[in-house]
Amino acid sequence: MIVYEKHVGAINLFGRAYGSALPRSMVLAVPVGMLTMFLQWDVPTREYLRAVQRHPNALMVVGTLLGIIIALRTNLSYARYWEGRTMVAQMSSKWSDASIQVVAFDEAATGEPAEHGIKFRAEFVHLMSLMHALAMQKLRGDSDINNLSVGSLVDIPTPKPSPDPGDVEEWYKCISLWDYFSLFPAKRHMKTYRRIFSLPVLGGISPEEREVLSQTEDRVHCVHCWLHRSLVARRMEGGIKVDAPVVSRIYQVLSDGMLGFENSYKLANTPFPFPYAQCITVFIYAVAFLITPALAVGWIDSLWMSGLVAFLMVLGYDMLNEVARDLEEPFRFDPNELPVWLFHHRFNARLVTTLCKSLMPEVGIT
Amino acid sequence: MIVYEKHVGAINLFGRAYGSALPRSMVLAVPVGMLTMFLQWDVPTREYLRAVQRHPNALMVVGTLLGIIIALRTNLSYARYWEGRTMVAQMSSKWSDASIQVVAFDEAATGEPAEHGIKFRAEFVHLMSLMHALAMQKLRGDSDINNLSVGSLVDIPTPKPSPDPGDVEEWYKCISLWDYFSLFPAKRHMKTYRRIFSLPVLGGISPEEREVLSQTEDRVHCVHCWLHRSLVARRMEGGIKVDAPVVSRIYQVLSDGMLGFENSYKLANTPFPFPYAQCITVFIYAVAFLITPALAVGWIDSLWMSGLVAFLMVLGYDMLNEVARDLEEPFRFDPNELPVWLFHHRFNARLVTTLCKSLMPEVGIT
Amino acid sequence: MIVYEKHVGAINLFGRAYGSALPRSMVLAVPVGMLTMFLQWDVPTREYLRAVQRHPNALMVVGTLLGIIIALRTNLSYARYWEGRTMVAQMSSKWSDASIQVVAFDEAATGEPAEHGIKFRAEFVHLMSLMHALAMQKLRGDSDINNLSVGSLVDIPTPKPSPDPGDVEEWYKCISLWDYFSLFPAKRHMKTYRRIFSLPVLGGISPEEREVLSQTEDRVHCVHCWLHRSLVARRMEGGIKVDAPVVSRIYQVLSDGMLGFENSYKLANTPFPFPYAQCITVFIYAVAFLITPALAVGWIDSLWMSGLVAFLMVLGYDMLNEVARDLEEPFRFDPNELPVWLFHHRFNARLVTTLCKSLMPEVGIT
Amino acid sequence: MIVYEKHVGAINLFGRAYGSALPRSMVLAVPVGMLTMFLQWDVPTREYLRAVQRHPNALMVVGTLLGIIIALRTNLSYARYWEGRTMVAQMSSKWSDASIQVVAFDEAATGEPAEHGIKFRAEFVHLMSLMHALAMQKLRGDSDINNLSVGSLVDIPTPKPSPDPGDVEEWYKCISLWDYFSLFPAKRHMKTYRRIFSLPVLGGISPEEREVLSQTEDRVHCVHCWLHRSLVARRMEGGIKVDAPVVSRIYQVLSDGMLGFENSYKLANTPFPFPYAQCITVFIYAVAFLITPALAVGWIDSLWMSGLVAFLMVLGYDMLNEVARDLEEPFRFDPNELPVWLFHHRFNARLVTTLCKSLMPEVGIT
Amino acid sequence: MIVYEKHVGAINLFGRAYGSALPRSMVLAVPVGMLTMFLQWDVPTREYLRAVQRHPNALMVVGTLLGIIIALRTNLSYARYWEGRTMVAQMSSKWSDASIQVVAFDEAATGEPAEHGIKFRAEFVHLMSLMHALAMQKLRGDSDINNLSVGSLVDIPTPKPSPDPGDVEEWYKCISLWDYFSLFPAKRHMKTYRRIFSLPVLGGISPEEREVLSQTEDRVHCVHCWLHRSLVARRMEGGIKVDAPVVSRIYQVLSDGMLGFENSYKLANTPFPFPYAQCITVFIYAVAFLITPALAVGWIDSLWMSGLVAFLMVLGYDMLNEVARDLEEPFRFDPNELPVWLFHHRFNARLVTTLCKSLMPEVGIT
Repeated sequence: MIVYEKHVGAINLFGRAYGSALPRSMVLAVPVGMLTMFLQWDVPTREYLRAVQRHPNALMVVGTLLGIIIALRTNLSYARYWEGRTMVAQMSSKWSDASIQVVAFDEAATGEPAEHGIKFRAEFVHLMSLMHALAMQKLRGDSDINNLSVGSLVDIPTPKPSPDPGDVEEWYKCISLWDYFSLFPAKRHMKTYRRIFSLPVLGGISPEEREVLSQTEDRVHCVHCWLHRSLVARRMEGGIKVDAPVVSRIYQVLSDGMLGFENSYKLANTPFPFPYAQCITVFIYAVAFLITPALAVGWIDSLWMSGLVAFLMVLGYDMLNEVARDLEEPFRFDPNELPVWLFHHRFNARLVTTLCKSLMPEVGIT
Repeated sequence: MIVYEKHVGAINLFGRAYGSALPRSMVLAVPVGMLTMFLQWDVPTREYLRAVQRHPNALMVVGTLLGIIIALRTNLSYARYWEGRTMVAQMSSKWSDASIQVVAFDEAATGEPAEHGIKFRAEFVHLMSLMHALAMQKLRGDSDINNLSVGSLVDIPTPKPSPDPGDVEEWYKCISLWDYFSLFPAKRHMKTYRRIFSLPVLGGISPEEREVLSQTEDRVHCVHCWLHRSLVARRMEGGIKVDAPVVSRIYQVLSDGMLGFENSYKLANTPFPFPYAQCITVFIYAVAFLITPALAVGWIDSLWMSGLVAFLMVLGYDMLNEVARDLEEPFRFDPNELPVWLFHHRFNARLVTTLCKSLMPEVGIT
Repeated sequence: MIVYEKHVGAINLFGRAYGSALPRSMVLAVPVGMLTMFLQWDVPTREYLRAVQRHPNALMVVGTLLGIIIALRTNLSYARYWEGRTMVAQMSSKWSDASIQVVAFDEAATGEPAEHGIKFRAEFVHLMSLMHALAMQKLRGDSDINNLSVGSLVDIPTPKPSPDPGDVEEWYKCISLWDYFSLFPAKRHMKTYRRIFSLPVLGGISPEEREVLSQTEDRVHCVHCWLHRSLVARRMEGGIKVDAPVVSRIYQVLSDGMLGFENSYKLANTPFPFPYAQCITVFIYAVAFLITPALAVGWIDSLWMSGLVAFLMVLGYDMLNEVARDLEEPFRFDPNELPVWLFHHRFNARLVTTLCKSLMPEVGIT
Repeated sequence: MIVYEKHVGAINLFGRAYGSALPRSMVLAVPVGMLTMFLQWDVPTREYLRAVQRHPNALMVVGTLLGIIIALRTNLSYARYWEGRTMVAQMSSKWSDASIQVVAFDEAATGEPAEHGIKFRAEFVHLMSLMHALAMQKLRGDSDINNLSVGSLVDIPTPKPSPDPGDVEEWYKCISLWDYFSLFPAKRHMKTYRRIFSLPVLGGISPEEREVLSQTEDRVHCVHCWLHRSLVARRMEGGIKVDAPVVSRIYQVLSDGMLGFENSYKLANTPFPFPYAQCITVFIYAVAFLITPALAVGWIDSLWMSGLVAFLMVLGYDMLNEVARDLEEPFRFDPNELPVWLFHHRFNARLVTTLCKSLMPEVGIT
Repeated sequence: MIVYEKHVGAINLFGRAYGSALPRSMVLAVPVGMLTMFLQWDVPTREYLRAVQRHPNALMVVGTLLGIIIALRTNLSYARYWEGRTMVAQMSSKWSDASIQVVAFDEAATGEPAEHGIKFRAEFVHLMSLMHALAMQKLRGDSDINNLSVGSLVDIPTPKPSPDPGDVEEWYKCISLWDYFSLFPAKRHMKTYRRIFSLPVLGGISPEEREVLSQTEDRVHCVHCWLHRSLVARRMEGGIKVDAPVVSRIYQVLSDGMLGFENSYKLANTPFPFPYAQCITVFIYAVAFLITPALAVGWIDSLWMSGLVAFLMVLGYDMLNEVARDLEEPFRFDPNELPVWLFHHRFNARLVTTLCKSLMPEVGIT
């Protein structure tokens, strides 16, 4: 996710190429511009295209229709992007609440159970961190457990990671010119990328955990089961020593958080429908290679101007379409994806605060 | 559901015909293109159509209006498609939580009830799987119990089924050329289709269950009743040994999941309103057979060009409309429907994980 | 609600007149077409209209604006229609859950309370059916208690009623030609309609109930009170023998269902805002009688063609507007209204299943 | 809120001036029409305007853009209107449920607490009515406690008030011609209006209540506090004699209802953003006084026709904009505001039914 | 947030410059208007631009597309603005409920715990006020604890602060001419701004609190932890003396409020996606500097008129875009931001009412 300032006239937005849709849309706009200039230059073609068209609107109607379609598609894509953000917020918020509740409620235990309390709470927080890390991995389509690193249960790493992957030098120097023209980084790059933006699990992962998880299709669900078993067991041994109805809240917020995850994950596993995407692509190519040159050559009487107009029209349509293709999968494409590593850092920071850094100070009433 | 890569310029989207709206829209676009060429070729008609129109915009206004309407319809259809996806996510997520809770809570039983625990939990998981399978059947409009197969309670079948029915050879060889031009596969095909993409029920279906279900109008509801009765009975005999408020969560997540199902099912039983669909169809035919040829012949002075422009205009309108007709019923039309068999597989896999594969390992805190 | 197949090219949609917006929009389109032909035929007028307009776009801008407005209005109307469907789904789903819970929990009673159990459960199911029937009545604007018929508590009537009122012969023969041109059936017809599509209440209505209800403004609310009183009383006498937190679920799902009802009912008592509706109507008449003939006569040089184009333009605007007027009140206008009688049948069928037809069979684990 | 019938062709909508946006938009449209006619009549200006414009589209592009913007704004306004309606539905529904629960649960008390029951329930119902009345006052921007009248706890006043303020003679005769041209009635009128449409509080307001409330900024919140204190006290003295988890429902529905209120109230205290409103106003004036006359004079060659076209264009834009300005604040402007006095009547009627008129009759099972 | 009256014709909206998008869009519109006049004045360029364009529509298609895109973007921005408002409403409503519940429930304590009750409740209310103030700070991007001032626990400050920062003289005199042309006030200004609109914390902040908070990344979360610990401790020492299920409500409303905060905060930390914003900016500059002058010079034959038309077109696009840029971050830009200081005042006022000013008076039943 690229964070940008808002200067007068938004003039600063021109200065960034990595993450821009501009180079990607050149791939189509430049050839069309050149084709148009060629047709304009070739006198018989030009004369034919002019003689044939008695009015530009007969062709323009297709262009207008495409404009409406692409504009609406881009808004659908933004809606997907935003739904992703909202659902991650729900997941993180509710799972944070679960952690607060478990820790605060368990600290109330007395006697023998209280002795095991620290261990239980540390384990619980570890499992929450593990579940969140696995969830983030699933959202970004990454199934390699080795991309989970070890995080500390007592310290919050500083400084906070940047939301913009372009700020991380290690990654920025991997980007080649090719990556500016393609939505997808090469596979090899993706591997590097996920390694650099690894997701720390508080307390690390034990070999036993690693083994079970590597054999499981649905890892988030599996850790969710562990969390339930862990809570039941702890309650039975005398921990989480608050009234039962209060305990039941924990299960509710866990479930609400899981619904947030499911709803983010559906964005990762349900692409923008194929026939819709294909329909728009067919349209774009038809407009780019048939309608645009015919219009530009037919109604503009200058080699350079007709090329420029054709270039601008195709750039307009295609740039918008590239934005749509990018946003519609909010967790997958670098660098405009939602920063899952930063979300995970924030969640971990909360866990650490909950566990170790939120003892109540003397409150201030003056 | 067709999963596709995102190559530079989306060029790869052209390579797929099965599931495309392109052939379906040819049905209208090709005749109109030919009609237009005929009218252009027939000198008196051509001269008449030109003499009559003093400016193209008088006709174009109808075309523009249709463009706006179809673009908005397609977005409504996408909204239906996406609501289907979201509601299935809610159903699966909440029902998964119910299963986790029942299994985790019931394992806490001790003494005699603990002995029956394994049987109860297996039966419960079986009923959840049955309810989900019946729900999926209802969504895809399939009432034949024989399309439910037998699944194992302890093993997750590998590999995961593909979301794209075109990947399954047994089905792909059933598709005839005709199926490319029609939204609906022939009835005979649908039967084969549902048999191939059968829905496994963990533990199979007993003859008694089969008998009761085959006499029931609302099978999902019926199994929902069984689940409630089963939970009440188990609790009374000493199982699900956690505090009552915690137990009450189970009923809540069951109910939330059921709301997800109801909201998906409404998409299956409430079509896009007839008068709206008819209105758009009347419009499309009027534009295709009256406005388009008149515009193309009247304002384009070439046999081939006018045919091509008319073809493109109608293709544009109709392709978009076919996409809308396809997406608006997200569970019914192969191959762009949401993959209910895959959703069911994922749900089953979770049930198996919950029941058998999620014993807690030594957690990792370093 | 009209259910239709999806044939190639949607060609079958032309074959249905009852429920179509086409005849209704003819009411405006035919006179405008004839007016246009008259103006075209009257040479001085024609010459005047041509001399006056130096370019069609000065007039067309109003037409385009109207097109955008009506298209957006139709989508608002669809949104209302769909919200109606969604909220009925929520109501039915949550009230079904309430019934399942009450029946399943009450069956757990032992000793003396168990003896009265059957009677209590039958009465409760009866009250649920009554409340749902009254809710459906309110949605369709029907306050005559005599339109509630008697339903059996133990049998589900077959076959399921059709969602399409046009399928019911008794009603279909009441429809006169006039009804094709008007949104509203005549008042006398509405009475017949509601009698034919009566809503069965399981167990019938006692004279006492009838008396109280006929004196109450808000009948649904009144039965909701009864249900609460009945639950409290039953619990006090020893029924609904599960843990209190589990009992509290019943009240939650009742309340959630009631919210669904309130949200459906607001659609029935809050019309599409008057000034908006009036604004669009003024616009349509201005475009139909001023802009359209001026454009068609001014820029098309043929008696028949100008009439046809004017007819098509007005048909387009008005047909879409009629669709909007129909859908925006989803429970009121036959035959495109949501089928409340079918919703009620489904709800009743669930109640019967819950009460009598869902004893748990031998479950199947192989 | 104006309720209207739906006649053939919507022809009846023309017959209503009070509440219409038509007169308000005349304020702009008539001067522009006259200006246009003047420019047309003034030969040098007319000739200049024609010579200057080589094609109308250069100017039309601004008009089209404005059309899109206003159409979208009107839909935003409708969305605000509808959100207001939905949130009031949530508030009323949930607070009704709270009342039902308190009354039904409290009636279960036995022994001494039962004796005070009637008094407690009457007081509770009174407080609910007071809170709702204060909420309605806040929505309509009315802070005068004297506009709360006295209502009976045992009788529902008949007939039901009309949703349309124009139906109330006392008010209708206050409206002057000026009120047709302005969104806002004069301040003096508003006072009369709120007095006429006063909000009855069941049981009246005691001097003590009046005193506390008149010193409080947030009156709804204050009564909400009272309700909580009242419930806690009653439960402690032995009332509301059901299981604690069931009691906890009451607090949940109270809180859900309050969220509904907050969400309605935000519509009353957060205007449509100033810069957006200003931007549209600047646009409308620019189009009305610069673009429209230039287009109408430049491309239409008749004094009356050009005046008419200019009038229609501005009427179109401005009427739609006036609808938007009216709907965007759904609780403030007479007569298209949502009828808060009717909502309050309905809520009171429910309270009375709950308290006194819903004893359970002999249920009907045949 | 600027609150404005609605006069006839919205004429009063012109009178406000601070907060208007008009000056900001002049930055682009004035140069383009001047460029256009220059090109018009320069005869060879003018002749070239006319000779080149055989019809304006070839260029206009790009302008129309941009119009649609910007209109849709502005609506997305409004949706963000409104989501911010809604989520703050949820946060405040639910956290208010939490406070009411804690205070009302805790007052029920008797014996020794009752003695500490006043202190506990004051501390709790203080913590709620602190959490809300920190939340508001985070929303407006302000991390300086010194901007939290001291508020009284027993008195509500009067008068209520104005939602419009322009009404506060201390701030209004800081605004320089430059601030009218830029979205962002200068950094130095922001500091002053936050100091003037400081957020009072009821009871002030103790040094210990200040120390812990200044070391914490996520302060809101930290205070949320304190609140949980405080509640658990108080319940254990005998306070909050109501049934456990009722106590559990408190945790639910706290969690619901936190979800509201998370959902507001995501608006503050997730900008409108960079590629989308860049795409629109590229488009605007291309249209402003290439398309607009070419159209205006090519088709309007007057120095002043072409300059005016170009100016108006660019003003239209850019003013709308500036509105979008402003609204899309609803908590950050003065003076159109949502008034977080007023929200905080309202919340504080509720807390004080709950704690001290809502003892129940003699209720009024007549």
